[in-house]
Amino acid sequence: MADPRFYETQGPFTLGHLAEVAGATLRGANDPGALMHDVAPLETATPGEISFFDNARYRQAFRDSSAGACLVHPDHVAEAPASMNLLVSDNPYRGYGLVAQAFYPLTDPVPGIAPSAVVDATAKIGAGSEICPGVVIGPRAEIGENCTIGANAVIGAGVILGSDVRIGAGVTLHYCIIGSRVRIFAGARIGEDGFGFAPGPDGPVNIPQLGRVIIGDGVEIGANTAIDRGAGPDTVIGEGTRIDNLVQIGHNVSVGRFCIIVGQVGIAGSATIEDFSVLAGQVGVAGHVTIGSGARIGAQSGITKDIPGGASVLGSPAIPVKEYFRQIVMLQRLVKRKGQ
Amino acid sequence: MADPRFYETQGPFTLGHLAEVAGATLRGANDPGALMHDVAPLETATPGEISFFDNARYRQAFRDSSAGACLVHPDHVAEAPASMNLLVSDNPYRGYGLVAQAFYPLTDPVPGIAPSAVVDATAKIGAGSEICPGVVIGPRAEIGENCTIGANAVIGAGVILGSDVRIGAGVTLHYCIIGSRVRIFAGARIGEDGFGFAPGPDGPVNIPQLGRVIIGDGVEIGANTAIDRGAGPDTVIGEGTRIDNLVQIGHNVSVGRFCIIVGQVGIAGSATIEDFSVLAGQVGVAGHVTIGSGARIGAQSGITKDIPGGASVLGSPAIPVKEYFRQIVMLQRLVKRKGQ
Amino acid sequence: MADPRFYETQGPFTLGHLAEVAGATLRGANDPGALMHDVAPLETATPGEISFFDNARYRQAFRDSSAGACLVHPDHVAEAPASMNLLVSDNPYRGYGLVAQAFYPLTDPVPGIAPSAVVDATAKIGAGSEICPGVVIGPRAEIGENCTIGANAVIGAGVILGSDVRIGAGVTLHYCIIGSRVRIFAGARIGEDGFGFAPGPDGPVNIPQLGRVIIGDGVEIGANTAIDRGAGPDTVIGEGTRIDNLVQIGHNVSVGRFCIIVGQVGIAGSATIEDFSVLAGQVGVAGHVTIGSGARIGAQSGITKDIPGGASVLGSPAIPVKEYFRQIVMLQRLVKRKGQ
Repeated sequence: MADPRFYETQGPFTLGHLAEVAGATLRGANDPGALMHDVAPLETATPGEISFFDNARYRQAFRDSSAGACLVHPDHVAEAPASMNLLVSDNPYRGYGLVAQAFYPLTDPVPGIAPSAVVDATAKIGAGSEICPGVVIGPRAEIGENCTIGANAVIGAGVILGSDVRIGAGVTLHYCIIGSRVRIFAGARIGEDGFGFAPGPDGPVNIPQLGRVIIGDGVEIGANTAIDRGAGPDTVIGEGTRIDNLVQIGHNVSVGRFCIIVGQVGIAGSATIEDFSVLAGQVGVAGHVTIGSGARIGAQSGITKDIPGGASVLGSPAIPVKEYFRQIVMLQRLVKRKGQ
Repeated sequence: MADPRFYETQGPFTLGHLAEVAGATLRGANDPGALMHDVAPLETATPGEISFFDNARYRQAFRDSSAGACLVHPDHVAEAPASMNLLVSDNPYRGYGLVAQAFYPLTDPVPGIAPSAVVDATAKIGAGSEICPGVVIGPRAEIGENCTIGANAVIGAGVILGSDVRIGAGVTLHYCIIGSRVRIFAGARIGEDGFGFAPGPDGPVNIPQLGRVIIGDGVEIGANTAIDRGAGPDTVIGEGTRIDNLVQIGHNVSVGRFCIIVGQVGIAGSATIEDFSVLAGQVGVAGHVTIGSGARIGAQSGITKDIPGGASVLGSPAIPVKEYFRQIVMLQRLVKRKGQ
Repeated sequence: MADPRFYETQGPFTLGHLAEVAGATLRGANDPGALMHDVAPLETATPGEISFFDNARYRQAFRDSSAGACLVHPDHVAEAPASMNLLVSDNPYRGYGLVAQAFYPLTDPVPGIAPSAVVDATAKIGAGSEICPGVVIGPRAEIGENCTIGANAVIGAGVILGSDVRIGAGVTLHYCIIGSRVRIFAGARIGEDGFGFAPGPDGPVNIPQLGRVIIGDGVEIGANTAIDRGAGPDTVIGEGTRIDNLVQIGHNVSVGRFCIIVGQVGIAGSATIEDFSVLAGQVGVAGHVTIGSGARIGAQSGITKDIPGGASVLGSPAIPVKEYFRQIVMLQRLVKRKGQ
């Protein structure tokens, strides 16, 4: 059970309702009206709680679990304890996410503008939005409906936010247009100057950065991540993409839809990351390269050339994963042979 | 054309004025009084706009461009369309930067102290400086003339800023002395404690960090970058150096003049980076090493030993670039041979 | 001498007092009542100042030093100048840290709540604590005694802090319980959402993050570091651990006691770092792996498998240090042979 100091549990909900929420099918001799009071891991769940089984390493925990109900893949139905109600789904983890969201929905904004917030007279604040203490909102900014702007966040002149957006504490937004249902976590920096200048013997000359950052619906951006605005073209983050903490995205970068960009990745200027790509932690992407749709880039890889769609690469410079592991094994053998 | 929601265009300017601004020579049958209304890329520029040609990959766009004028290198003058006015320069990109700055100058501060700012009675604020809402300025701090201190920034006791400094939203400055024309972007952390302690079996003992951060004129520091103050000596950033986002600079580091330090670089304590060095993205530099003047360090490299001035190195640990690529090629060949 | 603009020196102190503070033994014909006025490096220390000698590279400076007193290891006593008072200790650097803390103690909080701070009526603020301007403290938060909460920091609902805690400017704390004598530097983000979602063809479904961050006594956390809260279990940082700047720690990670985690390290979700481990700069740790007690991970290493306690590893993927250097040497030789 989540610490009530921080979390308030909704419910209880009937199994029938939760199956509907999860897009799952109730299986076996179930009582669709039975009430579930919370989510819990397999090991600790009680008959009044619902869990999920999605990873073979927890098979024994699944077989031994006292959970009242469980999200489970059709392939594993036969292994369930007799007393367990089953919510069968092709994607039990996804189903669990939806069920857990029912018990623990995002906190609604408490509409209103804190007295200590400084909102320019020409800014527009949508109905139902909450502007927390210490927030600063510049001229002509437009905040949509049902947004939460966290304490001490700063929203620059002209910035536009859609509806149902959650901006974390201390975030700064400048020169950007942001869709709906976007979440940006504490300390993220959107729309600062790109790193653009012409070097020279008497010092660099700055190239004015004249673009914007365009962020699609449903995007989430992690804590202390920085996304620079474009130099002339825009920097673009496509719908539904997830960006983790401490990621650096340079000017003019285009990230497609539903990409996953893990912590501390760095993407240099004018790179293109196509839809559904996955960049694991600490990957570096050079400027102007393209990572094709659905490519998977292993942790700490360095991408210096275009990567074809669907490819899996690893290493710095990155090579196909199979080739990478062949090199690793070969090096081990060579060293062993010479060392003896 | 830059989005007027965010940018205001100055001008128009005559070709003669722009040539002077760029330090370029007007070539051909030009009317020095012709007016240019904006900057634009080669592909979209109109007869009233000025562009630049600096990269062979845009040669065709240059030949086909309708731009009214273009910054161009002497070697490419012959390829220009007949209707194009040419501003000839040995460094067209630099010339373009200066022209673009004429159309889009930095926004001037709007002098005054926001009512919600908290400025200690002993702090001094120079004429023409703008202190935005939510800013906190400590005792004895001194802000020069024509500075902008962004919303919710924090300036600690005793900190000194020169003139024409731009401090981004949410920046924190402590134990530092900052020159003129410096720009520090949102969320940067200057002058926090260095990572100094004596480990031991019953826990570490902190070594008090008693130095400062000294930042030269014209330095720019990216979003969410952290520069720790010295332990006894100072941490120093030389004139005109450019530091990108999310860079970590440890205590006692000395960075020279006109260096370029790209995103997510980490420089450990007491390292020395000499003038005109370039550190590409995600480079790591070990403590106490020296990188010689004008050295170029490739992306993701690890520097564990001194690097001679002018060297180009790559890899972790870094080796000369040529040797690095020879290793890469050799590994590929060895794996191919053994794999078949 | 530390710049009096930023630092105030305590003292003078007698040699006898400083020896006691350092846990060191006064050696030779000393006057335990002689007064020391400051700490200083060997090269610049005067007869009224105390220094330390702990690194062979400074041997000549030690022999030539005019320092009035010096922390020194028993092995080096014979090399000291005749006029130098010696504070002999098995760990001179640690002794120096304690002495320097006597001259430069942490600044005490100035008790009180700044008028511009916004403190919820249900929050509790301990005696002697200082709440700086612009701070926002949410409902039911509890701040212990003698804490300093830096300007524009944000403390979320329900957060608990022990006593003698120092929170830097612009820090944000949510969903966390923090021990005593903890220091968190500017811009750190504690308790944001973990990076948890179930991907799918129509976009990711978020998994609610229902855990906390638990931070032990004496922990220090660097500037702009991000520590996500747990997904269900907690994210835990053990007593006395030191975390540098720009570090990323994912949900459910468990870090033991007295670990050292250097700048820009990234630790993926559910990893375990046991007591006394050292992770050098830019190390990446994959999810769910365990790093055993006292292991040492070299800079930029990638950890994808469990590492046994006490091991020293290096490289990406990391291998034992000796093996790593054998590979480096072998590659150099192979390239030389083939290149000629």
